[in-house]
Amino acid sequence: MDLKAKIRVIEGFPKEGISFKDVTTLLSDGEAYRQAIETCLDLFEGIEFDVVVGPEARGFLIGAPLAVLARKGFVPVRKPGKLPSETIKHEYALEYGTDVLEMHLDAIKPGDRVLIADDLLATGGTAKAVCELIEKLGGTVVGLAFLMELDFLDGRKVLDGYKVFSAINYES
Amino acid sequence: MDLKAKIRVIEGFPKEGISFKDVTTLLSDGEAYRQAIETCLDLFEGIEFDVVVGPEARGFLIGAPLAVLARKGFVPVRKPGKLPSETIKHEYALEYGTDVLEMHLDAIKPGDRVLIADDLLATGGTAKAVCELIEKLGGTVVGLAFLMELDFLDGRKVLDGYKVFSAINYES
Repeated sequence: MDLKAKIRVIEGFPKEGISFKDVTTLLSDGEAYRQAIETCLDLFEGIEFDVVVGPEARGFLIGAPLAVLARKGFVPVRKPGKLPSETIKHEYALEYGTDVLEMHLDAIKPGDRVLIADDLLATGGTAKAVCELIEKLGGTVVGLAFLMELDFLDGRKVLDGYKVFSAINYES
Repeated sequence: MDLKAKIRVIEGFPKEGISFKDVTTLLSDGEAYRQAIETCLDLFEGIEFDVVVGPEARGFLIGAPLAVLARKGFVPVRKPGKLPSETIKHEYALEYGTDVLEMHLDAIKPGDRVLIADDLLATGGTAKAVCELIEKLGGTVVGLAFLMELDFLDGRKVLDGYKVFSAINYES
């Protein structure tokens, strides 16, 4: 199945000049969704991991089913104030301003081998922030799985040193 | 496995007097998470559905893996402004004020049999709003699956006429 053909491209969202890759048309197709998650898992064949970590909200749509198919735990990364127990925070730079992500302090144990999952690798800023959160807690990032990657934004450079896999690539 | 024992109860979050049921401790346990999703699916044995719908963000953590295990599509319900294509909106009352949920207009086709999934049935307000969104689009809600239910809040009364199932119940 051509997974890329299941993604809807919407011009001018969220602002002019951006070709937004709308994953919802893939998700709503049961066979395509299942195959997308299995493809992300297959990309990691032979790489052992203990737990999957994904940022809200679209990262949940990839990371959660990936964890359940692999029979691994899932740890959510959330915006401030959403997690009920003690958290670790990480502030990171956006194009304009900054953003903050949180993870439960006890969500990752030292030595945990962590697979990060998200829907999209763009500039890599969020993914790098998630790596840093995990490493602050003593976890090891064994790799990052993205359903889609915007090659032209060079997010891989920001993630230099990490194993990065994506199922669907956009060259422009 | 005792799934309820995997839920962490946090007193006073998000405000005093509330015993918050923290699902993250269950999600981070791979065997418990898989069993939780399979239990939600088992509750619906014999009930046919075409697609799973879940509200952001915790609803994604139940609905998305449930859809992938069942090889069905998943349709996200989101807060305003998050979905890139044309949406249908539904405003509903909260304890204080109102909230708005959105779904893509083309996400549900007339006649679709829809299973709604979420982590928690509390007062039922969000679940009822999701039912109404689906029905506005011509879909049929064949049932609602919750990982947890706060029986004492009587959310089922709000969902009168719908099939409601939950895997973990709290009487107080």
